[in-house]
Amino acid sequence: MAEKNENVIFVGSKPPMNYVLAVITQFHNGAKEVEIKARGRAISRAVDVAEIVKNKFMPDIKAENIQLGTEEIQTEQGNKLNVSTITIKLKK
Amino acid sequence: MAEKNENVIFVGSKPPMNYVLAVITQFHNGAKEVEIKARGRAISRAVDVAEIVKNKFMPDIKAENIQLGTEEIQTEQGNKLNVSTITIKLKK
Repeated sequence: MAEKNENVIFVGSKPPMNYVLAVITQFHNGAKEVEIKARGRAISRAVDVAEIVKNKFMPDIKAENIQLGTEEIQTEQGNKLNVSTITIKLKK
Repeated sequence: MAEKNENVIFVGSKPPMNYVLAVITQFHNGAKEVEIKARGRAISRAVDVAEIVKNKFMPDIKAENIQLGTEEIQTEQGNKLNVSTITIKLKK
């Protein structure tokens, strides 16, 4: 189950609590591992989500295997732009 | 040398390139390891800095041992606020 894409939460521009609840729901549904992914400015929020899950709701969770990366995206003007990405693997 | 605080770069609100140059300078001065630290919204920028150093300047560098954390800060109004932190260890 831990390998499936269902256990990935993409963090965007909504309030952190939305994503926190999504992560907790995944764990309550039996996931042993949940991946939090974000890019660009949402990276800070992804770290907030991981920290809130760990500190306020599930102290037994561990953030391990944090991966950084770069993706090339196309702007509306047709230019190419590099954006940083983060993947935080939370494990029960 | 790798244990010293001199090898820590605190990423704030300046343009990423400022910090990229600071990191590269540390390595050129003989550091085997440079730590990039940031908190709050600067976390996204810290990831940018690590990725730019790795992809554009020093492809042999590895980002390992990425640590997330939470710090309590005091606002100007005297309230307590939790801020997320990141530490990215770059190694030659």
